[in-house]
Amino acid sequence: MLDFLFKDATVITFQGKDLLILPSANVGIKNGRIVSITDKEATDLPQTRRLIDASNKLLMPGLVNTHAHLCMTLLRGYADDFTLLEWLKYIAPAEAATDDAMAYTAAQLGIAEMLASGITSVSDMDMQLTQAMRAAFESGINASLCNSAFCEPSDAKHTFKKDPAFQEIERASEYHMADNGRIRMDMGIHAEYTSTASLCQEIADYASKQGMRIQLHMSETAKEHQDCIQRHGYTPASFFNQAGVFDLPVTAAHCVQVTDQDIEILANKKINVSHNPVSNLKLASGIAPVNQLLKANVNVSLGSDSACSNNSLNLFEELKLMPLLQKGITRDSSSLTAQDAFKAATINGAKAQGRDQETGSIKENFYADLILLDLNTLSLMPTYDPLSTAVYSATAKDVCLTMVRGRILYENGEHLTLDIPKLLHKAEGYRAKLAGMRVGRQ
Amino acid sequence: MLDFLFKDATVITFQGKDLLILPSANVGIKNGRIVSITDKEATDLPQTRRLIDASNKLLMPGLVNTHAHLCMTLLRGYADDFTLLEWLKYIAPAEAATDDAMAYTAAQLGIAEMLASGITSVSDMDMQLTQAMRAAFESGINASLCNSAFCEPSDAKHTFKKDPAFQEIERASEYHMADNGRIRMDMGIHAEYTSTASLCQEIADYASKQGMRIQLHMSETAKEHQDCIQRHGYTPASFFNQAGVFDLPVTAAHCVQVTDQDIEILANKKINVSHNPVSNLKLASGIAPVNQLLKANVNVSLGSDSACSNNSLNLFEELKLMPLLQKGITRDSSSLTAQDAFKAATINGAKAQGRDQETGSIKENFYADLILLDLNTLSLMPTYDPLSTAVYSATAKDVCLTMVRGRILYENGEHLTLDIPKLLHKAEGYRAKLAGMRVGRQ
Repeated sequence: MLDFLFKDATVITFQGKDLLILPSANVGIKNGRIVSITDKEATDLPQTRRLIDASNKLLMPGLVNTHAHLCMTLLRGYADDFTLLEWLKYIAPAEAATDDAMAYTAAQLGIAEMLASGITSVSDMDMQLTQAMRAAFESGINASLCNSAFCEPSDAKHTFKKDPAFQEIERASEYHMADNGRIRMDMGIHAEYTSTASLCQEIADYASKQGMRIQLHMSETAKEHQDCIQRHGYTPASFFNQAGVFDLPVTAAHCVQVTDQDIEILANKKINVSHNPVSNLKLASGIAPVNQLLKANVNVSLGSDSACSNNSLNLFEELKLMPLLQKGITRDSSSLTAQDAFKAATINGAKAQGRDQETGSIKENFYADLILLDLNTLSLMPTYDPLSTAVYSATAKDVCLTMVRGRILYENGEHLTLDIPKLLHKAEGYRAKLAGMRVGRQ
Repeated sequence: MLDFLFKDATVITFQGKDLLILPSANVGIKNGRIVSITDKEATDLPQTRRLIDASNKLLMPGLVNTHAHLCMTLLRGYADDFTLLEWLKYIAPAEAATDDAMAYTAAQLGIAEMLASGITSVSDMDMQLTQAMRAAFESGINASLCNSAFCEPSDAKHTFKKDPAFQEIERASEYHMADNGRIRMDMGIHAEYTSTASLCQEIADYASKQGMRIQLHMSETAKEHQDCIQRHGYTPASFFNQAGVFDLPVTAAHCVQVTDQDIEILANKKINVSHNPVSNLKLASGIAPVNQLLKANVNVSLGSDSACSNNSLNLFEELKLMPLLQKGITRDSSSLTAQDAFKAATINGAKAQGRDQETGSIKENFYADLILLDLNTLSLMPTYDPLSTAVYSATAKDVCLTMVRGRILYENGEHLTLDIPKLLHKAEGYRAKLAGMRVGRQ
């Protein structure tokens, strides 16, 4: 007996490295996994607890958001249109005022938005790691979470074990590998300009011993890039490489300013890049050289960054913007296709998380991490190519079902694991508190 | 007795040239117009036929889409990721196969999508002008529509009166100024590369005599720009200016490739620019120099272009992308603010249509062309600054009500003037026909 059977769905799946459209398939789910993908006509329908009519619907892998800061969700739109220095004057005290309860609510709010917009897995970096992990654990989403140590790049005495991040990691470790690896703890390095080489080495050693992956920010802004060269004589990519960080599986967020030599390092070391186009434009960092990264066979995935620099946690925006920007800046409308973007938002993201043998595609034995889009709507009609629809036309509102590991977490506007009215009420209370602090600053 | 009273709304309106937020206002509507805007506490509630609780909701002017091709909506996603030449191989025969019935359905589909995403007024250019005007008239939307003549730029003998566009204008004229000017006919010039100077002069003369405005495409691609210089010795802006076109009120779509001298002409002649950032990126045309245009006091509004080059008719995407792109390319996160973008999408659009004395703002005696956004949702919570929310966080799904001239056309997922199931069914039939033609081409 199946748990779910999606009947007569249009399916986007993979055939080897290429995407494949199944115009009409029945997809069976059991014990959290995809157990059968059959042609609509092929067989009698197997028995199932719930039959979901997916005719005129697109069944596709859930989106994987490889860079977020869930605990900053209460700072959505807190400080827009400012220069970085002005921005920090708002954000730093607001972050300092964010206690555990606020961080937990912020993370829930962010996860709820992600589930409603078709994200089934998220990579996250937050100071309040325990709260983010708790919220992710309870919500049912897949998540790989980390925090990060901070120090002055000249502070040679700063050690990982003395950093508050280390205590937080110990506190959060109860969630590591929870629910059979649905929740995972990664190690985080904030950035070159907030680390020393020895701190990086310590963190890499720790990650290596624990079998953990690493998330970090890299080459986001021109200033960061230039300061690093001035400080060390080489770029952030070389800095991390020389500190041994790149001998581990790493996801590097942003990579806007990377040089040709950096790209070679990223390719050789098989570093995963999280491309965050909305955030990079909004904070005026620029446009990452994604075409060149892809040409060098670097694994590029997509990230939303925080609600404070985006201001949405809706990967459909990145999914459309990624090819648009590369076409626009290269003046070649055939460059970076819908297929490239779709892979970035799904299987490439799973790979960045080290989950590509279990999620990121509609495939037998993979976890049922999937979403259903209604094709019979004004904004997706007509659909000639479901892949083009998913990338260029679909938006969060077209998501009618989000399933993670065979569990429906969101369906037709309703969240199944989160109490949204209560959450909005709590968020509104915190908003009032943070707004009060903000007024004094204007 | 009021027709509607929006109670306790957060309102974005104008104070002179600046935007102003009213945190809690009651807005009364009568006979299609806004008749009162009062502070929530100020007075007893006036009598009204329908009281709409707008607490936790944002009442703002409807969006004005100043460049669209409604009759191409059935070609959404018909030919993505191709070079222009490949693209034309798909689009030209599909356009040729679009008869009046298909054009009418396409226009209805496009208008329905626009209303659901908060667009209350649209400027449109389509060969099947009568069908577009009919669909706009019946739907209740504000629309300024035109068609365009076409000829080889070397065809000195081509005259406006002999062009099929002229007959179509006569056919469509029954809708001109229909419903007290809600529907208006503009004159259209397709582009420099499909016109001669004498054809432009004829059209300008006709428009002048009829008191009509002009819509045209200008400097969209580098090739267009360079070919024009080779042909005439000057840019498209100079070409139109010398042909007398710029002595009339003009909206020029795209303007991606404009030079400093072109910008001076646009400013001096008070030409309205329709900025189409999604389309310009997707077709690899580039990024229009919007910051420079605004600095020169050119009136810049926003357009979606067709569903075939976007692939959405959802101006919230342009509203977010406009500031993002300018910040990204100038590397200044304080450049082109939410305020600039919001004006482009509302009052500047109304100005481009010659409607700025009647729509584009929440103002007494203005038409009630407005939309309501639910602020108490996951993706808009928290809201510190409603303007920032409208520009950087809001998407089509947050629109819960669209009103044009005091008539609700869309509310909570339902269209009041269009039969959506029937429309989707018709569109699906045409899709099958067009898909058949497409297969032969692959």
